[in-house]
Amino acid sequence: MILTVTLNTAVDLTYRVPALTPHASHRVTQVIERPGGKGLNVARVLAALGHETVATGFAGGATGAVLREQLATTPVRDELVETAGATRRTVAVVDAATGDTTQLNEPGPTVTAAEWTAFRVRFTALLDGATAVALCGSLPPGIHVGAYAELVRLARTAGVPVLLDTSGEPLRRGIAARPDLVKPNADELAQLTGSRDPLRATHEARGRGARTVVSSLGPDGLLAATPEGLWRATPPTAVKGNPTGAGDSAVAGLLSGLVDGAPWPDRLSRAVALSAATVLSPVAGEFDPTAYEELLPKVTLKQLDDSA
Amino acid sequence: MILTVTLNTAVDLTYRVPALTPHASHRVTQVIERPGGKGLNVARVLAALGHETVATGFAGGATGAVLREQLATTPVRDELVETAGATRRTVAVVDAATGDTTQLNEPGPTVTAAEWTAFRVRFTALLDGATAVALCGSLPPGIHVGAYAELVRLARTAGVPVLLDTSGEPLRRGIAARPDLVKPNADELAQLTGSRDPLRATHEARGRGARTVVSSLGPDGLLAATPEGLWRATPPTAVKGNPTGAGDSAVAGLLSGLVDGAPWPDRLSRAVALSAATVLSPVAGEFDPTAYEELLPKVTLKQLDDSA
Repeated sequence: MILTVTLNTAVDLTYRVPALTPHASHRVTQVIERPGGKGLNVARVLAALGHETVATGFAGGATGAVLREQLATTPVRDELVETAGATRRTVAVVDAATGDTTQLNEPGPTVTAAEWTAFRVRFTALLDGATAVALCGSLPPGIHVGAYAELVRLARTAGVPVLLDTSGEPLRRGIAARPDLVKPNADELAQLTGSRDPLRATHEARGRGARTVVSSLGPDGLLAATPEGLWRATPPTAVKGNPTGAGDSAVAGLLSGLVDGAPWPDRLSRAVALSAATVLSPVAGEFDPTAYEELLPKVTLKQLDDSA
Repeated sequence: MILTVTLNTAVDLTYRVPALTPHASHRVTQVIERPGGKGLNVARVLAALGHETVATGFAGGATGAVLREQLATTPVRDELVETAGATRRTVAVVDAATGDTTQLNEPGPTVTAAEWTAFRVRFTALLDGATAVALCGSLPPGIHVGAYAELVRLARTAGVPVLLDTSGEPLRRGIAARPDLVKPNADELAQLTGSRDPLRATHEARGRGARTVVSSLGPDGLLAATPEGLWRATPPTAVKGNPTGAGDSAVAGLLSGLVDGAPWPDRLSRAVALSAATVLSPVAGEFDPTAYEELLPKVTLKQLDDSA
């Protein structure tokens, strides 16, 4: 089974409005409510691909109850740890006229020391039986900045391949604990390394401790620095749509390939095709399975000179 | 007891952000969650003034459960009728830099015919024992546009004085059923009568069937066309702050004066002082009791020539 960790889960609300005007009053014409947080998005995609998937992290309060009720309707197994504080909401306000999105993210509940301890116990138990683990998203208030580094070490001790997808200081600390895989986007990479040059920054990130760095170049695909070499994977055509969740789908593709023992080019193809099929989907954060099957054989893989 | 009706209750969320930028991502720095909808706001103010207060209307789903839990912590008695659909949320995004508010209102659940029938039974039972009733706010989807007219007639049949505070077609229909009191603001009055002249529009609204029309002139106070004459009530100084809920506090002041048998000038003073004390309160929608006591004797009352 594949384990995904979402420490700062969320009830994701999408509000459609005719046009967002600051300081005006708006009638919301459509409300979509779904379980969110990067790790839960990754888990949903993995389950849709047919992988046995378990989600852990935190949930609490009335919003946490709603999230767990919604998660129960998916094939993802719920191993979330209860918090006294209420799970946060995020609100994506979609401008119907332009398709542009304005995002409002609640900070999340403060996690207590006892709750963190309870989580570590659950996490350690779940590692026994996991073929891979993904640590995804921001840290809620109350959790120490080295939390991901701690979880990376627990996974390594248990011999479970570990992917880290976060940003800022938690990424900086986490990468030093030597995860198998990190998947930064251009901004996260620049923040980590100080460089906006993708190739240089990807190498530099790998030098900080990750066995493999897969950098997301947005619509231009992925750049992967692996122990077996350097690859660039590009979607067949520029896809237009909603990029929400595209990065999470890429993480799911990488994990799916990893647990299937696929070679790197295949893993990257899955990640790029899933990511593009998510952008193309009419529902934000979901992927279009038909588009995925069509895109998969059309992803361009190019091995680059690794001496760069 | 005073009965307030909120057919479209809401969980009101206030999000503080450093500055709202369309199409950007925002970290919400403060989240406030409270039971909302105009009738519930009126009920809270009435209870704070020491009146025995009962709230009815609809609530349902996880958001409805949260709303009822929060209502249970106030002295207001909960007589809400359960709906299968979930109670809506409203989100007020407050720009910390300017204090400006951007409002996002979910439409609310569709109320079924059976739920509307259950509500009417509950409403009729509650009228027995009510000294006044307030019908407040928008109609949720599924409820016919003449619903307030129907409730006004039920209240009149029961001999309970009825105040109507709504807008658009529900106000137009409701006013024709001859409520004791309507409290439109300038926009609602203009929509109803086609006139932006407060005096003319207030008279015109009264001609449509309301026994008394109290028009809100925002920071300039109230204009009241009553069977005993025409009054203008003005706060002592221009008050600065958040006007959220000021109109609901004015409704509470009018009802409070009505059930106490106070003469019209006293009722209007209460309404203006409560409204100003709500604008002055640091918490949106709450009133500052000290400011209320200070403002009450300082409201200016002026009887106008009723031949206008």
